[in-house]
Amino acid sequence: MPELRKDPIIERWVIISTERGKRPMAFEDRVEERKGGFCPFDPGNEDKTPPEIMALREPGTAPNTPGWTLRVVSNKFPALMVEGDLDRRGEGIYDMMNGVGAHEVIIETPDHNQNLEDMSPDRITDVMVAYRDRIADLKKDIRFRFVLVFKNQGRIAGASLEHSHSQLIALPEVPRTVNGEIEGARRFYSYKERCIFCDIVDHELSHRERLVKENPIFIAVAPYAPRFPFETWIIPKEHMPHFEEGKREVYESLAEILADVIRRLNKALRNPPYNYMIHTTPFNDPHLGDVSHLYHWHIELMPRLTRVAGFEWGSGFYINPTPPEDAARFLREIEI
Amino acid sequence: MPELRKDPIIERWVIISTERGKRPMAFEDRVEERKGGFCPFDPGNEDKTPPEIMALREPGTAPNTPGWTLRVVSNKFPALMVEGDLDRRGEGIYDMMNGVGAHEVIIETPDHNQNLEDMSPDRITDVMVAYRDRIADLKKDIRFRFVLVFKNQGRIAGASLEHSHSQLIALPEVPRTVNGEIEGARRFYSYKERCIFCDIVDHELSHRERLVKENPIFIAVAPYAPRFPFETWIIPKEHMPHFEEGKREVYESLAEILADVIRRLNKALRNPPYNYMIHTTPFNDPHLGDVSHLYHWHIELMPRLTRVAGFEWGSGFYINPTPPEDAARFLREIEI
Repeated sequence: MPELRKDPIIERWVIISTERGKRPMAFEDRVEERKGGFCPFDPGNEDKTPPEIMALREPGTAPNTPGWTLRVVSNKFPALMVEGDLDRRGEGIYDMMNGVGAHEVIIETPDHNQNLEDMSPDRITDVMVAYRDRIADLKKDIRFRFVLVFKNQGRIAGASLEHSHSQLIALPEVPRTVNGEIEGARRFYSYKERCIFCDIVDHELSHRERLVKENPIFIAVAPYAPRFPFETWIIPKEHMPHFEEGKREVYESLAEILADVIRRLNKALRNPPYNYMIHTTPFNDPHLGDVSHLYHWHIELMPRLTRVAGFEWGSGFYINPTPPEDAARFLREIEI
Repeated sequence: MPELRKDPIIERWVIISTERGKRPMAFEDRVEERKGGFCPFDPGNEDKTPPEIMALREPGTAPNTPGWTLRVVSNKFPALMVEGDLDRRGEGIYDMMNGVGAHEVIIETPDHNQNLEDMSPDRITDVMVAYRDRIADLKKDIRFRFVLVFKNQGRIAGASLEHSHSQLIALPEVPRTVNGEIEGARRFYSYKERCIFCDIVDHELSHRERLVKENPIFIAVAPYAPRFPFETWIIPKEHMPHFEEGKREVYESLAEILADVIRRLNKALRNPPYNYMIHTTPFNDPHLGDVSHLYHWHIELMPRLTRVAGFEWGSGFYINPTPPEDAARFLREIEI
């Protein structure tokens, strides 16, 4: 069973994979390039992944056989295990619990060579709706307090398979990044009685210098203090605390703006590696209270163009060589 | 003038380098390997760096000429500018100030091919003492609240020149990582009336399963909840809040244990890229109050063996495949 350990000084949780514990030599592959060849996500190889949790497939086709357009499966090498009790406990001055959670893979397309942004609008919407449905389902498990949906595109961004996919991890603790945002949003709310994300949307829509794109439901903006060059956030224009509570129209609109932004980044930066992640309101957390009036879901997308070095790790301070106003103008004006 | 911008939601500062603002094509070099050849840190090339701020050199040799064993110079491409006022100001809902700070490079050796751990004990001590002296000097500037000393070893860890060097950045704000540690240490102190780092030292010295090495003044340990495989912290055994207030014996002892740990990592992981950074008590911060009874300086050293991907960025939650007890045993037992 993996362990979840809490740093005793700072509120940071770490998953220690005791079972696949790596000896020093196991890290030697850090210089190895990935080889082409066999792909467990290709149609026909369904038996090479754990069984599907959900799938969109042609009527009449059986689970775990070809005929699907989207599949969700458990990660074959999960960071957390779905079965068991949390068993929170101390170890001298330290705190830990069992590594209980879910770790799933969303295989976005049967086509090995198709990226998310190349898919038809309907299929991209299906991916967004799959995120919604998996979060809504995992939320029913009272051991979990947060589901992080994320995508690593490209080897430098951490993808170990090139076939287009996203992942989600359901966690028994709210991640500190999200907690930090909630605390900031709470301070703002207690002062202004408004959601800070709604204020940001208003500010960016009226100033427009950091606006990359808008559609009826969303804006895509370069944030005011981006950690990385060309970092772009997608934020619902109206107050929406929970990612998983929208109707299909919301995800159609999200699919459209997300694909548009990725295409702009691809054109501007020649298909950069990137990560995106969804930050949404936590659930089942007895300490947090109701924060749905002050927190607002959004997607943070960051191309991986610069190396994160000692300064950033040591400080949580970032150096960004591209002002967000320049990045936004460039992305706004590029022809796609 | 670079800008320091604060994310309005989370307490994260970002340095926006407005002057060397990078256009998209400037990131194309992300795939390029560094070429050998000319090195501005080699003796004889002193005029290729900004003038030296301090140096250890043979008697009778002139500044900015050969004859030195250690040089400190300003970074030629500084992230922050040393001259000017902070001019804190708002911009609608956002906060910013001028990018005032210092960014210096400590050239550790004149020998292009020598790494820190290969130097003589005296020379490594000189490097540690240079850290002390530069922090002590920059602390006198009331615009600064923290000096982060760090080292990037290897290209993957962010080094852009291979000649052995460290860096420091003096900042007008306490970095959020250090703030987070201080807040955690403050909570512990208000409950126990003890320094949490001192308790960790006691715990690790009595249990010894995460101990890598000890000498009369320091311990080197794998922390209980390490973010990265083989992450190692060096902590003074006695309570020491300020890195910059030791006598030479302290830095001799530090040099010994630091070089020992790096040699063990080199042997175990075949010269891994790594970062280390010094966390020490901030100064000149009117909000922080006196924290010298509860904060304790230390070095955090992390080999860069795994990729940081979307999950880690999105959550501040880390997945570490090597239990620290295994890493410590391996490093402790390896013959160097």
